[in-house]
Amino acid sequence: MSELKDYTVLIEEKLKELNFPSEPQKLYEPIQYILDLGGKRLRPALTLIAASLFRDDTSEAVPAALALEVFHNFTLLHDDIMDKAEIRRGKPTVHKVWNENVAILSGDAAIIKAYELLGQLPDSIFRKVFQVFNETALEVCEGQQYDMNFEEEELVTVPEYLEMIRLKTSVLIAAALKIGGICAGADAADQEILYELGINLGLAFQLQDDYLDVYASTEKFGKTSGGDIVNNKKTYLLINALNSDNKMLVEELKHWINLKDFNPPEKIEAVKKIYEELETGTDTQLQAVSFINNAVELLDSIDADSEKKKPLEELIFKLMYREK
Amino acid sequence: MSELKDYTVLIEEKLKELNFPSEPQKLYEPIQYILDLGGKRLRPALTLIAASLFRDDTSEAVPAALALEVFHNFTLLHDDIMDKAEIRRGKPTVHKVWNENVAILSGDAAIIKAYELLGQLPDSIFRKVFQVFNETALEVCEGQQYDMNFEEEELVTVPEYLEMIRLKTSVLIAAALKIGGICAGADAADQEILYELGINLGLAFQLQDDYLDVYASTEKFGKTSGGDIVNNKKTYLLINALNSDNKMLVEELKHWINLKDFNPPEKIEAVKKIYEELETGTDTQLQAVSFINNAVELLDSIDADSEKKKPLEELIFKLMYREK
Repeated sequence: MSELKDYTVLIEEKLKELNFPSEPQKLYEPIQYILDLGGKRLRPALTLIAASLFRDDTSEAVPAALALEVFHNFTLLHDDIMDKAEIRRGKPTVHKVWNENVAILSGDAAIIKAYELLGQLPDSIFRKVFQVFNETALEVCEGQQYDMNFEEEELVTVPEYLEMIRLKTSVLIAAALKIGGICAGADAADQEILYELGINLGLAFQLQDDYLDVYASTEKFGKTSGGDIVNNKKTYLLINALNSDNKMLVEELKHWINLKDFNPPEKIEAVKKIYEELETGTDTQLQAVSFINNAVELLDSIDADSEKKKPLEELIFKLMYREK
Repeated sequence: MSELKDYTVLIEEKLKELNFPSEPQKLYEPIQYILDLGGKRLRPALTLIAASLFRDDTSEAVPAALALEVFHNFTLLHDDIMDKAEIRRGKPTVHKVWNENVAILSGDAAIIKAYELLGQLPDSIFRKVFQVFNETALEVCEGQQYDMNFEEEELVTVPEYLEMIRLKTSVLIAAALKIGGICAGADAADQEILYELGINLGLAFQLQDDYLDVYASTEKFGKTSGGDIVNNKKTYLLINALNSDNKMLVEELKHWINLKDFNPPEKIEAVKKIYEELETGTDTQLQAVSFINNAVELLDSIDADSEKKKPLEELIFKLMYREK
């Protein structure tokens, strides 16, 4: 049995072997650039780990794992334009290094590359994986659209927010696990359990991301701590707080949201204080833990040796108790 | 045997049946909007017509035909952002009606939809079509990147320009024909002839487009006549003229290109006069005719009844002798 670390090393190696054409430079270099920024390689690791539950040799799943990572980076290329994000993993985003047109077009090339990688799967599993991949990819776009819609909405409810992050983040994590299962011959029931596990893991992961933007140290997280507060980003924390019954604190929060002219560290401190009084951070973590518990229960119910479940269990806890 | 018109009617019907989800509205409505703008439906028509060379029942090729049309519209959604185009087929472009983010994301959803349509092909042909589609899609991105690169280059040569339009325009037309052949069981040799025919047809088509932007009437063409001249767009005409030996006229042309402050109709008239003296328009049409002659010869060499070749022949001449 391989450990989580082994899969990550393998993925890094395989990503390096992708060998994008050298010309036109502005089309392919940005894909290499964003892939080289690193990241957790969460999605491909999940695919290989899910495959390892059912089969020792997970090599058949490798093209699918890579396709998911390249697809994920396609979404980052385009999302960073739409969100006007200037920094990704501590480095300038592609549309800042080059320009928006380059980020649009290299993103387009990246999604096609992802499909090309999928095309390396053997016939017996390709069609099924292709179908899951397409459905998921469309849902990810839907999630991003809902996320942008929320920016213009006065009040978003917690269920609306959870549905948005289910689409924007969780379905890809769920698909990564399910596709791993498909590649390794898991039966339909286990495929569905893997998918549900991924949905719960994805929701917990995003809530943790929202939490860490406020409470992680800058150095570890690779982006400015409190950036979501400064930008009034509708995270789980903000939505949770705005839906509170404590009218006084909600008004105070709205005051900070509507303030055009402010000192960023001061706003961060003030909003953090409101979150503390409303126990927003604690609520967020409790909600995340409840999704993690679901994920662990679902893992238990998969028809595979408990010994083989350890890398996935390890990954689940690592994601939950990370500091960045 | 069906006529060209029958195929176009069928494609319009099938496009109407695509039934995009209603929510999120900003994701799917723009795809419907751009598809509803109409257009020649050239690529899907070519797929069905190519299929009809080898098989009377072309219904198996329909999902591929639709995928190519949806893919083509995906490229339009993104190209219009990159080219800052405000008008498409006489109507405001998606990024003008909505905004750039909407055009980016609905474009992304459109390419995924195109793949979903491809997924409806029967197993026996799907893998082969998928491979041609991926290769082509990447080349189209490469062509768009070269086109953007050219904007920043002082002098582009005629061969460089032809290679750019081969990638940006011709390979998709070539793939449309080849995929039609694959769907109808054409042998490898005929598949390659169809591809080459498409390359020549695509080159002729683009040269004709460049020509018509200068010489077609506004009403018929659906966009402002002479727009390419006003914007110094590096078309075949401009590149051909700039590479002329007539230094005096080239200098005059450069004068108009570098002029920041000008009256558009005056610039159009002046540049048209230079083109006339250099016989640029005639050269462009001669070059286009030579590509069309190649296409017709290639059509002759395909192993199919000459009667069955008539709709494709008709389409070739229709494209060549169109007025818009």
